[in-house]
Amino acid sequence: MRIAIIFGGSSFEHEISIVSAITMQKVLKGTELVNIFVSSDREFFLIDAKDMKSSTFSSGAYEKSKRLQLQKGGFVAGGMFGDKKIDIDTALNLIHGRDGEDGKIAGLFEFYGISYISPRAEACAMSYNKLYTKFFAKSIGVKTLPYELLSKNSERKITTVLPVIVKPARLGSSIGVSIVKEPSELDYALDVAFEFDTDVLIEPFMEGIKEYNQAGCLTDRWELSIIEEPQKAEFLDFEKKYMDFSRDGKVTSAEISPDIASKIQESFKAIYDPLFKGSLIRCDFFEQNGEIYLNEINPIPGSMANYLFEDFRGMIGRLVKHLPHEQKITIDYRYIHSIQSAKGKV
Amino acid sequence: MRIAIIFGGSSFEHEISIVSAITMQKVLKGTELVNIFVSSDREFFLIDAKDMKSSTFSSGAYEKSKRLQLQKGGFVAGGMFGDKKIDIDTALNLIHGRDGEDGKIAGLFEFYGISYISPRAEACAMSYNKLYTKFFAKSIGVKTLPYELLSKNSERKITTVLPVIVKPARLGSSIGVSIVKEPSELDYALDVAFEFDTDVLIEPFMEGIKEYNQAGCLTDRWELSIIEEPQKAEFLDFEKKYMDFSRDGKVTSAEISPDIASKIQESFKAIYDPLFKGSLIRCDFFEQNGEIYLNEINPIPGSMANYLFEDFRGMIGRLVKHLPHEQKITIDYRYIHSIQSAKGKV
Repeated sequence: MRIAIIFGGSSFEHEISIVSAITMQKVLKGTELVNIFVSSDREFFLIDAKDMKSSTFSSGAYEKSKRLQLQKGGFVAGGMFGDKKIDIDTALNLIHGRDGEDGKIAGLFEFYGISYISPRAEACAMSYNKLYTKFFAKSIGVKTLPYELLSKNSERKITTVLPVIVKPARLGSSIGVSIVKEPSELDYALDVAFEFDTDVLIEPFMEGIKEYNQAGCLTDRWELSIIEEPQKAEFLDFEKKYMDFSRDGKVTSAEISPDIASKIQESFKAIYDPLFKGSLIRCDFFEQNGEIYLNEINPIPGSMANYLFEDFRGMIGRLVKHLPHEQKITIDYRYIHSIQSAKGKV
Repeated sequence: MRIAIIFGGSSFEHEISIVSAITMQKVLKGTELVNIFVSSDREFFLIDAKDMKSSTFSSGAYEKSKRLQLQKGGFVAGGMFGDKKIDIDTALNLIHGRDGEDGKIAGLFEFYGISYISPRAEACAMSYNKLYTKFFAKSIGVKTLPYELLSKNSERKITTVLPVIVKPARLGSSIGVSIVKEPSELDYALDVAFEFDTDVLIEPFMEGIKEYNQAGCLTDRWELSIIEEPQKAEFLDFEKKYMDFSRDGKVTSAEISPDIASKIQESFKAIYDPLFKGSLIRCDFFEQNGEIYLNEINPIPGSMANYLFEDFRGMIGRLVKHLPHEQKITIDYRYIHSIQSAKGKV
């Protein structure tokens, strides 16, 4: 089985996608990997295994690699003697943030008929925009925190009691996120968030709330990870988060009651099935007084949350065998034919 | 100004997209058009103006046309002496249904840096799925009809009082839609709807409810069409609808009070701005006792609803000049550099 790791992209999370891709080399050892880098200006490059280190990208050396084009059925390398198809079975979308999580890569692969591991375009829309995540969660009976939405041009007045957390609606990896404890800090926090997005969510910042992460996917069975209680910095800044994307060690399960564990698992399943079929996601939950709240869906989690699974490689292999496929549509020109014959035209 | 009309696609509405594209030749006369057909298996073909007639497609003659590839910056035609770029200023996404309205084409054009008229991917997700349209409408304070959602595997029990209208969640052009008046008809109506989608919406069928259509877009000004009261068949079957996509005559405004007209226009603007910027859409509303309900958003309406506008061609010209562009993201490898220097590595 040959899996293409698709990483990089025109995204604020471009660099951490590189880190995630380097981590895959280690945690998917034994699987044949084809590494396809999407440069910040969206060209595709085939990267040799030996060049899968961060300096290849930061130095610009990747530009000497073979350029690829995307066509019906797959990637091709151009050459003197015509196009050569790159032999892969499945592509793994590992672009965090824009391009990867907003549905572009899913749309491209679906359009060109490439088998791929990724949330599908509709799932991307519902998880990339945190406001839509709230609509979606509500529709399936999963609770989320209360919120206010501010748009770039709207008045900067909020009614949520401080402290609050200020987040761009469409970014992951804590980019542009601030905690506001004093009224005087709000304006700056909004300036920062609006640098990244036209819409910003304001949520109450709950001190002492418990946080739990659950990852998983559906193959021929539910493949749920252990539940992790992530390390408790107030929240991770981008640099700490960056280091976090290279995680490959194992973690231990959170010490929680079977009741809480089961609520988290059931919420995860309700979120995942059917919208996220074909992907491996991580959901971050809050727990307070026995109630579970969805904080966010990470549709393409850092390093694919490999560290939460006993048999990550085996699971990816099973996921490849259980990817959803688009409904086949046959066009028979029945309507055009019938109208042509009604009009007596050809 | 050269506009590429993108039509066809792997869609149940493939044939009516061809009809819409043929109509564009007439209503955009005087604009330079480049016609790019997307075959049902998703290859791109450059169609000569003289071949823009339905028989070119129904006979398969289009296969003799020049094949195009999509690359960074635009479409190219391959040839003996390398690739030749197709010179266009903007692409007009005219693929109804799958591919066009589900965000694939928007994703492709955004990814490859092509200027395009179309709902952006996020807007596609919110309008292609009628359930999400309801979430979205609610969030901006626009009313919709009550509904029930049935999934393919769920029990076929409904609580809405008959008569009801049964619709696949993700299709336009009335495909798979039925009105159910007797309990005995429900099962067949669901069979039909589930042929096209895994999710089906059930809504009360309101006899005697008024229906009004409003199209428009935002350029340097609001460009709102007249409000039409569409012809009142119980609802249009696919063949009648098909004929409808070739409309190019003008229609007259609905006879409504200024108050209702203003409610329709304000609802339209709330739906359009900012989510649908860059597109020309048509919203179908119901009116009952002075209340306005959004029925559905047509993100790529049949023949672009040209017949509702005084100066369709002029408006398209202005829209081309006011298309939204993605935020530019600069990747400076700052994090990789800082981590490399912290580790003392290159």
